[in-house]
Amino acid sequence: MEPILYSYFRSSCSWRVRIALALKGISYDLVPVNLIKDGGQQFSAEFKALNPMQQVPALKIDGITLCQSLAIINYLEETHPNPRLLPQDPKKRAQVRMIADHIVSGIQPLQNLSVLKQMGEKKMEWAQNCITSGFQALEQILQHTAGCYCVGDEVSMADLCLVPQVANAERFKVDMGPYPTITRINKALLELEAFKITHPSRQPDTPAELRA
Amino acid sequence: MEPILYSYFRSSCSWRVRIALALKGISYDLVPVNLIKDGGQQFSAEFKALNPMQQVPALKIDGITLCQSLAIINYLEETHPNPRLLPQDPKKRAQVRMIADHIVSGIQPLQNLSVLKQMGEKKMEWAQNCITSGFQALEQILQHTAGCYCVGDEVSMADLCLVPQVANAERFKVDMGPYPTITRINKALLELEAFKITHPSRQPDTPAELRA
Repeated sequence: MEPILYSYFRSSCSWRVRIALALKGISYDLVPVNLIKDGGQQFSAEFKALNPMQQVPALKIDGITLCQSLAIINYLEETHPNPRLLPQDPKKRAQVRMIADHIVSGIQPLQNLSVLKQMGEKKMEWAQNCITSGFQALEQILQHTAGCYCVGDEVSMADLCLVPQVANAERFKVDMGPYPTITRINKALLELEAFKITHPSRQPDTPAELRA
Repeated sequence: MEPILYSYFRSSCSWRVRIALALKGISYDLVPVNLIKDGGQQFSAEFKALNPMQQVPALKIDGITLCQSLAIINYLEETHPNPRLLPQDPKKRAQVRMIADHIVSGIQPLQNLSVLKQMGEKKMEWAQNCITSGFQALEQILQHTAGCYCVGDEVSMADLCLVPQVANAERFKVDMGPYPTITRINKALLELEAFKITHPSRQPDTPAELRA
């Protein structure tokens, strides 16, 4: 049976996993979960039984259901090691994980849908502040680690986190001027097929008006 | 040269790393970074040069400086594999990572100091809501994965995240009644030497009135 990915076109966490699946050449069925419609389909009893965290992405694979994007990506890395998404050198692996964790734990959770819902009018300003503060640190780190991509010249887990986070920044109208390294790497990655075909503008659940 | 850990006694992210170092028998020097005093010593120019993310923990080891608790713990796991903090079976490894990421990305960032500072009077209520909502999911997950500890009967990265998060819950007076599995595992882990000696009440920077 093909793996089943529960995904929402605009969810940056879902996009990370879509990129990993594409890079590793794993075909899958996609089940859209609309985080807005009906008050959020992730809160349905059916989805809660699948993922008690009530979040996308979730991936049914090899007889189990995984959630949390990096846990899913690490599982794919261990079971489908080629092409690898972590460098061989432990110090470089640590750099990849630092950047990925900085985005996944330090930026995205503070500007996700469930937090922003509670911010009312301040929503936009809150999201901008979280992303700006995170990107200031990220820009400095990347100046030490980057080659063509976040760490050297190989696509890694860090890159899978970077591109969806930049898309969020653009959606929240963050001025990207102060982040030339982030901008350059993001642009290079968006040229790659695995990032193109998994883009939020090209998903089965992308609304017509947002389609590329 | 011994590794240097930059830590704050009450930081749950620092505690995760202290437990990993203790379990793996790695001795280190501890440099306290007071997140409250002087408006937060993590914001000093000196510390920012060390860690642009301006957060603890940071670990100087093997000629590099690492930050982000799970990235640090993964580096220690790869360079000091015994005792292991990830099971051998990929599916069980994925369960460990799911639980760790759920805490590290899904709960802690929403109730950390920098977010709570912005919540004013609502601080306590906000923290309680984040932790309660995260623990409801965690309790369900653990009912499937737990043995003595979070995943089976071996201490794993998930456990290193659980105990400091429960300490935060207690500090924010979360009612732990609905979470018997979390409570049982937390209690079992607190019996272990590595969790005892790294406890916030026994750190060099623990204020006298909070010492055990």
